[in-house]
Amino acid sequence: MIDMRSDTLTKPSEQMREVMRTAIVGDDCYGEDVSVNNLEEYCKELFEVEAALFVPSGTMANQIAIKAQVEEGNEILTEANYHINFYESASTAILSRAVLNCVRKSDGIINKSDVQELINSKPRGPLYSKPQLVTIENTINYYQGKTFPLETIKDLYNYTRNIGISLHMDGARLFNAHIATGIPLNEYARNVDTLSVCFAKGLGAPFGSMLMGSEKFINSARSIRKQFGGGLHQIGMYASAAQYALDYHLIQIKKDHQLTKEMAIMLNEIPKIAIDIDSIETNMIFINIKSLTSNVSEFIKLCEDKGLLIFPWLPGIVRIVINRHISREDIYKATEIIDIVVNKLSGRVVHA
Amino acid sequence: MIDMRSDTLTKPSEQMREVMRTAIVGDDCYGEDVSVNNLEEYCKELFEVEAALFVPSGTMANQIAIKAQVEEGNEILTEANYHINFYESASTAILSRAVLNCVRKSDGIINKSDVQELINSKPRGPLYSKPQLVTIENTINYYQGKTFPLETIKDLYNYTRNIGISLHMDGARLFNAHIATGIPLNEYARNVDTLSVCFAKGLGAPFGSMLMGSEKFINSARSIRKQFGGGLHQIGMYASAAQYALDYHLIQIKKDHQLTKEMAIMLNEIPKIAIDIDSIETNMIFINIKSLTSNVSEFIKLCEDKGLLIFPWLPGIVRIVINRHISREDIYKATEIIDIVVNKLSGRVVHA
Amino acid sequence: MIDMRSDTLTKPSEQMREVMRTAIVGDDCYGEDVSVNNLEEYCKELFEVEAALFVPSGTMANQIAIKAQVEEGNEILTEANYHINFYESASTAILSRAVLNCVRKSDGIINKSDVQELINSKPRGPLYSKPQLVTIENTINYYQGKTFPLETIKDLYNYTRNIGISLHMDGARLFNAHIATGIPLNEYARNVDTLSVCFAKGLGAPFGSMLMGSEKFINSARSIRKQFGGGLHQIGMYASAAQYALDYHLIQIKKDHQLTKEMAIMLNEIPKIAIDIDSIETNMIFINIKSLTSNVSEFIKLCEDKGLLIFPWLPGIVRIVINRHISREDIYKATEIIDIVVNKLSGRVVHA
Amino acid sequence: MIDMRSDTLTKPSEQMREVMRTAIVGDDCYGEDVSVNNLEEYCKELFEVEAALFVPSGTMANQIAIKAQVEEGNEILTEANYHINFYESASTAILSRAVLNCVRKSDGIINKSDVQELINSKPRGPLYSKPQLVTIENTINYYQGKTFPLETIKDLYNYTRNIGISLHMDGARLFNAHIATGIPLNEYARNVDTLSVCFAKGLGAPFGSMLMGSEKFINSARSIRKQFGGGLHQIGMYASAAQYALDYHLIQIKKDHQLTKEMAIMLNEIPKIAIDIDSIETNMIFINIKSLTSNVSEFIKLCEDKGLLIFPWLPGIVRIVINRHISREDIYKATEIIDIVVNKLSGRVVHA
Repeated sequence: MIDMRSDTLTKPSEQMREVMRTAIVGDDCYGEDVSVNNLEEYCKELFEVEAALFVPSGTMANQIAIKAQVEEGNEILTEANYHINFYESASTAILSRAVLNCVRKSDGIINKSDVQELINSKPRGPLYSKPQLVTIENTINYYQGKTFPLETIKDLYNYTRNIGISLHMDGARLFNAHIATGIPLNEYARNVDTLSVCFAKGLGAPFGSMLMGSEKFINSARSIRKQFGGGLHQIGMYASAAQYALDYHLIQIKKDHQLTKEMAIMLNEIPKIAIDIDSIETNMIFINIKSLTSNVSEFIKLCEDKGLLIFPWLPGIVRIVINRHISREDIYKATEIIDIVVNKLSGRVVHA
Repeated sequence: MIDMRSDTLTKPSEQMREVMRTAIVGDDCYGEDVSVNNLEEYCKELFEVEAALFVPSGTMANQIAIKAQVEEGNEILTEANYHINFYESASTAILSRAVLNCVRKSDGIINKSDVQELINSKPRGPLYSKPQLVTIENTINYYQGKTFPLETIKDLYNYTRNIGISLHMDGARLFNAHIATGIPLNEYARNVDTLSVCFAKGLGAPFGSMLMGSEKFINSARSIRKQFGGGLHQIGMYASAAQYALDYHLIQIKKDHQLTKEMAIMLNEIPKIAIDIDSIETNMIFINIKSLTSNVSEFIKLCEDKGLLIFPWLPGIVRIVINRHISREDIYKATEIIDIVVNKLSGRVVHA
Repeated sequence: MIDMRSDTLTKPSEQMREVMRTAIVGDDCYGEDVSVNNLEEYCKELFEVEAALFVPSGTMANQIAIKAQVEEGNEILTEANYHINFYESASTAILSRAVLNCVRKSDGIINKSDVQELINSKPRGPLYSKPQLVTIENTINYYQGKTFPLETIKDLYNYTRNIGISLHMDGARLFNAHIATGIPLNEYARNVDTLSVCFAKGLGAPFGSMLMGSEKFINSARSIRKQFGGGLHQIGMYASAAQYALDYHLIQIKKDHQLTKEMAIMLNEIPKIAIDIDSIETNMIFINIKSLTSNVSEFIKLCEDKGLLIFPWLPGIVRIVINRHISREDIYKATEIIDIVVNKLSGRVVHA
Repeated sequence: MIDMRSDTLTKPSEQMREVMRTAIVGDDCYGEDVSVNNLEEYCKELFEVEAALFVPSGTMANQIAIKAQVEEGNEILTEANYHINFYESASTAILSRAVLNCVRKSDGIINKSDVQELINSKPRGPLYSKPQLVTIENTINYYQGKTFPLETIKDLYNYTRNIGISLHMDGARLFNAHIATGIPLNEYARNVDTLSVCFAKGLGAPFGSMLMGSEKFINSARSIRKQFGGGLHQIGMYASAAQYALDYHLIQIKKDHQLTKEMAIMLNEIPKIAIDIDSIETNMIFINIKSLTSNVSEFIKLCEDKGLLIFPWLPGIVRIVINRHISREDIYKATEIIDIVVNKLSGRVVHA
């Protein structure tokens, strides 16, 4: 079975497992897990940030960042399709009682003038909600793994800093952006107030995210992590797996991007399905199957029957993600399966 | 001073005051205020609803309607500029921890296909936020007091009922819609699950809103009103004022609408300001002053200096509302003042 | 029917109604209601506080005071039977997400060492909830209208100020305390950070509470009042009623207290019911009927059948409140009714 | 250094690490982690429950149990010193907006009549908060690791079931209770609605808790875990560690209890410190040092200087916990250190 549903599905290698086996651990609730501490220190240097906190998931990283920077009733300015609104709006409402004030952008990139418009779209003053945080995502899941342009980030940060609003980057797939663009990780970090990165996506570690920012921010974040039930004990084995992934897997992400492009070119030859091939930058392909007399569930089922797992995105759209387990052979095989399935569905006679 | 800032600014007449003076009251926390009970009964008949609850403000009416119908983390589908999002997003987040999932419509009218799109715009299922309420506003403050088309409401209600979502109408200015369109109040009421009307806007009562819906809904609403601190004691004097307004002021709203149109026609002759004259239906005029080398604060200040009060809406836009105290003479005088102010600002030499 | 259920049940007199009829009003949402402004100014002088805000109810006054002074997850230290916990725990949780850390005192008075114990009863530090507010009640409803000793308040305030915690007094019945003890209202006010008083209890106005404290506090309070839906329009008629009550009713509370004592002495003669006669200080009597083979509902029903309304407090306990409508004749009549009901219930043969 | 601060501090053995190294894992967000699934299945059989969910921490297990069973504004009835109030009151307020209605018991055991009193301590009805959950803790950390009597649990459950309230057992140290009493785990489970157990305490696994109850409950719990950011990817290595601990460590807890008793007997001989030796049942000793002219910080520091780590509980009280790494030699050495420290502090001359 070829599994192209997500990059969260990778499994630790023998070498990574061996590193985990021998990791020095301690109780991280007491700040005594050496592997966690080392990973936090490593990330502080890598990203050139004041402080870092290892947290169990990308969602918890985002939710802590929001809670630490947005008071209840105040606003997060963001794009409607970024993960924080698309998948996490319930969490944001429940945990932080924050307001999501969203714009929808056809190109998926929220910029300074979008933020200005969102600010001006509602009455401001002591009686009303106050914008306190802008969030961006990099790469952007909904927009097929698109990278967020550094210049736009700089513009945003220049603006938000001046008006006293924080800028958070949900970098669940920032390692993909870094590999795709060559922009150093610290260059991203220095142009936002806070950011998170996830080790369990393209990087191929089994667990964990790193939340980063000022010391003051991370102190708040530590309390909130505890409140959310995210204070863990001997979690260092997974910290050491993340360190291993940083050391050995990071560079290998290039291969995922290369295969993604190759597969997209092949898929683009298949009639009746649509791919926005030009915008592919990292490890995702969105396939629009709206021209087929089918739906996402059926399409996915047929692929699965032939040995390919893909992900239902929204009505009419399926997502393919190339992760570190996928080989060139796999993309040939997967393309063939999709071709067969599309053919089968195209040949179908529709009775009125 | 001519006060065209809002229709909430009207003051009780001598007759209304006399009615208030002699009102029978009791402790409404014990359900013993006869004037409140009578008003609730009257509204039940007028709107043909199962139950009605007198609440202190339009905001509290909306917030109770939301809390009674949306569980935390779940979604309200609405238009970004309706009062519930525009002015009440902080309250909605704080009091109900609900998610506002908004579309922006150029014509201001959210319809069935907008709601469908909002539903399909995010992943659904047990792990994610669930749409539970659609809210509309009638008339729509942001869209210059526009009435919400009954056919669109019917379509919406037909749809939302089928998929098990509630439909709430924020009828803060429903009496204006009723007078403008001639559509009976009960016709509006039967096409939504819950609705609120405000007595303190065009109707000219000094206080209060009525929240209406099923008996089950109003029972929840009563508990929530208490939790919000909206359980009041001998409030019947204001209930009797509202009853008086229903009896004697309702029909007079026609005059406001007539004067609004007349004033809009006159304002339209003034160069350098823009009015969307065709869309004026009730008692509001939005003036776009973006062509002037001025801003809203200065513009308003200059009008005030000459004896006219108007309302700052958003950057570049001021709002005029005709209420029951405004006479034909007032609109002539007010137009003249605006003309003078515009002229003054137009003549200004801008130095580079 | 003699109504001794509560002091919230009083109705405005003809003179008060006349004052209301002629009150100057305006839109308080714009800060333009002269009667409201005058009442706020009057209270600022009367209580010698920096700022005052007229709010619709005692519950809203308390809830605003909590929200303005306690961040989510932090603690209110109080006595379990004070109104804020006894009746308002749901509101406190929902509106402020604050933690109620309560002690139970047999004498009903929370003092400095109780507060110290509450503080020391849990681990403190950045990961845990932090005490931010102490609340007291004066008079204390649950403890039969007991006054809160000024010296204890001073002690508390001296302590809370030093450790950076706020002290709030729920003075729903502070006018009763003031009349019973002779302690000036400003003497109470200067020994707390924030306080509320209610005009609709013993004072006999139909509506409203005043929330008082520093200017900074009242600015926050104004925003929160809006969020809760407590921003009202031409509410000045009720402000003028409250002013009238302050001017003419305040001194008359003495009569209520006198009659309460007289009635308690008479009730004390009735066998099988128990009254804590020594602790009666203001306008309430709690009757313990646990010795009767009856329950509160039946007891109240029998009294009602004979023309007396009293209030169900808790299992085995009913509450009597003397308000400004109650005459000496009423207390004789009411005592007689209770005597008859007790006799009837005492004579009952209980079959095994 | 002898570390007696907690039982959360244990580190995985070589054998456990080897088991973790070879664990089969998958993405638990997709329900595909075989080791997690196996552990959940195993616990379902062991506890004879309908459903089980692996969660990252004991705090998250409790917080999910609360959120799934208590609507906002409603009440949890519990003892003030159980973990849920003592350590988690902020989380409970923030995440669930639930009200903690607590009794304080000198023996630490909340029973049926305590719950009845809590229910009767406040007015009930649609306008007020409603009791929805009783929580107990077993063993009880605050009461020196005391076991909760099964008969009291049965009584409670019989009562709560009848009145439609849920009963939750925070079994963070239920394995200690099981070993100390010999009561089967399923016997505990069948007398509550929901329960959690922690693998990272006396059992000596590095991570994780299991939340258990009906299928319906666990379905809600799964959504809430996601909202809290507790949905994890390849977490199976820690599930396999927990399984290993269940298989090999469970029975070894007996040794901890034996050593705890032995150490308590020795400590009891030291003058000036007080130990409630009779109530020691499992792996904890609380030492009252209030007779010493010292404080907790100083006492702990002096012990640490001599090679013993102990835990600051509250002012005047320190906690000792015997975990699986502690040997008989360690308890002799530790007792000697404490004896020396007490002697040193006792000899101190206090100048007036």
